[in-house]
Amino acid sequence: MSRGFPTAEYQARTQKAQNLMAQADLAALLLTTEAEVRYFTGYQTRFWESPARPWFVIVPASGRPVAVIPSIGAALMARTWIQDIRSWRAPDLQDDGVGLLTQTLNEIAGGGRIGLPDGHETHLRMPLADYHRLAGQIDGTLTGDQGIIRRLRMVKSAAEITKIEATCQIAGRAFDRVPQIARAGVPLAQVFRHFQMLGLEEGADWVPYVAGAAAAEGYDDVISPASDAPLAAGDVLMLDTGMMCDGYFCDFDRNFSLGPPSAAVQAAHDRLIDATDAAADLARPGVTAAQLFHAMDGIVTGGAGGSDTGRLGHGLGMQLTEWPSLIPQDHTVLEPGMVLTLEPGIATGGGMMVHEENIVITQDGCRFLSPRADRNLVEL
Amino acid sequence: MSRGFPTAEYQARTQKAQNLMAQADLAALLLTTEAEVRYFTGYQTRFWESPARPWFVIVPASGRPVAVIPSIGAALMARTWIQDIRSWRAPDLQDDGVGLLTQTLNEIAGGGRIGLPDGHETHLRMPLADYHRLAGQIDGTLTGDQGIIRRLRMVKSAAEITKIEATCQIAGRAFDRVPQIARAGVPLAQVFRHFQMLGLEEGADWVPYVAGAAAAEGYDDVISPASDAPLAAGDVLMLDTGMMCDGYFCDFDRNFSLGPPSAAVQAAHDRLIDATDAAADLARPGVTAAQLFHAMDGIVTGGAGGSDTGRLGHGLGMQLTEWPSLIPQDHTVLEPGMVLTLEPGIATGGGMMVHEENIVITQDGCRFLSPRADRNLVEL
Repeated sequence: MSRGFPTAEYQARTQKAQNLMAQADLAALLLTTEAEVRYFTGYQTRFWESPARPWFVIVPASGRPVAVIPSIGAALMARTWIQDIRSWRAPDLQDDGVGLLTQTLNEIAGGGRIGLPDGHETHLRMPLADYHRLAGQIDGTLTGDQGIIRRLRMVKSAAEITKIEATCQIAGRAFDRVPQIARAGVPLAQVFRHFQMLGLEEGADWVPYVAGAAAAEGYDDVISPASDAPLAAGDVLMLDTGMMCDGYFCDFDRNFSLGPPSAAVQAAHDRLIDATDAAADLARPGVTAAQLFHAMDGIVTGGAGGSDTGRLGHGLGMQLTEWPSLIPQDHTVLEPGMVLTLEPGIATGGGMMVHEENIVITQDGCRFLSPRADRNLVEL
Repeated sequence: MSRGFPTAEYQARTQKAQNLMAQADLAALLLTTEAEVRYFTGYQTRFWESPARPWFVIVPASGRPVAVIPSIGAALMARTWIQDIRSWRAPDLQDDGVGLLTQTLNEIAGGGRIGLPDGHETHLRMPLADYHRLAGQIDGTLTGDQGIIRRLRMVKSAAEITKIEATCQIAGRAFDRVPQIARAGVPLAQVFRHFQMLGLEEGADWVPYVAGAAAAEGYDDVISPASDAPLAAGDVLMLDTGMMCDGYFCDFDRNFSLGPPSAAVQAAHDRLIDATDAAADLARPGVTAAQLFHAMDGIVTGGAGGSDTGRLGHGLGMQLTEWPSLIPQDHTVLEPGMVLTLEPGIATGGGMMVHEENIVITQDGCRFLSPRADRNLVEL
């Protein structure tokens, strides 16, 4: 696998952003989060795990993005296509980059409007006091990005899709090996640890997300950490993972049965597969996120309009979850290159079951990126 | 190991916060990040990996914290000591919790001042547009938390220290096994993957952070992802990890030599160990973070005042890095219960070397939480 992207990928992203910025009368975009910075620069490090230092990238009206970053990252940033890298020795308790950022924004954007991502699923990764200080001292005006970052990142390039699919394959191989690590008597926490090891062994760089549950006739939660309770005959085991390879996620799950599943559990799983099929049959350019929701909801609840988990799938890419949401309110029109999870859940006698696959929207339909689950539950 | 904390731990944290809030004339604290929410509630999940949903916890002037959270998390939150849990079906594109949060803040804080963490190393994890909407519609006023969260979290309880030490032990066992996975010819990326597997096998719940480098006579970067370049005889290999067990991190590194180290490399390592010793000898209540910096900087640079990495250590606990910073500007006075990394770096002929250990400040000195590295570089 070739790592990273050619410069042309970043040039294309930047050019598209600049076209939208011109329409929106934005003199610059100001970006602060890991995914936003990486999207425009290719800057990739796990160092973001430390909250100590802020990082800034500015997309100007024309030309390459400009990095205003702690000096500890300057050498790594210099290996990307970014040429204008300004750095300070962070942390600096008097002025942690705000002065340098002010000067740079004044130079790039003058008295113009500077867009920050401010909508759903975004946040500003800098201290709030520094944000207010910046807003008060720059020549220009801080405003929202009018959804530009969302619009760009929601449609993936062919190169991005290749990376997501590679990560899906890695997770698929790890799921295939779950019978090696899970059986009655094994504590769920150990299954979680060993499943992460399988992912790494199969080629994941990193396993940022594992969740799951095990209980008879369905589980009651899909986001809890694992307990040390041992798996028991009759349990349904669900493992959900977001692995990462070269900066791109997969996000899908698999259900297993400890011994033969009950008729009710197998029937619930059948309905989940049916729901996924229904959404995949419908998914194509021009269809909306809400329509995919209703296709699945009709099968799993008879059209009740959803449940407390809130959605039946979402976008996927550089982050575990991205826009859009498969909910009745989200009328995002699907386009070729959008990567989505289909994630129907169904109530069972003992709680619920959730199934998840990953697809990409193509010119005339969709294609599965995750190796599809068998209709019949795998027995452990 | 017993998981989580008894309710008394959360009661004590909340009471201390409320005492400081009274002094600061704050009617409530509003918290939005994983560590802040977990600190007061015990709510633990890897679901924060998804940026889709905001989460809010309010610390009132008296009584237990109140959770205003997406309904997908309500069942898990109900297993904590929190009793007042208000939820909405997120994501909601019209009102993603802001209405419910407004109502709750008005009820709890009235027209009072509501503190948000806003200083160094903090950020607000909610969409910026929603923050402005909230500020405009609540009865009270949003303001900074005056460093209350920082002051509380910087001093760890005995129970927290036990957890950090357990994680250090896990990483120590993983480091002891590096000779099993690293030798000349093995790609660095494979070493990274296998090192994460060792951490999991030794008991880590999760390995959020691995960085490192390998190069002759020292490396030039400590935050880059691994390349597929194979280890070669004469390389210095450094692995730095933040593993997590039951919600608490370790953060330390180890250096290895592929074959016998050069005299210069061993001498550099000696100086790093000397620097760590000097800081540990000095560390006790009443000494400042800056003094620890100078004790190490005197040995590794002769007193030049630091380098572009910016600091020679930092706090550690629920996050990979926490306050304070070991830098000349940080005059935080050490107190018993503070957990710190000592992280001196030194220039070498080929780049640099970095060494790191974890300590806790005791009544009359400090104690190492990480199993100390040998002065002699381990040969692979």
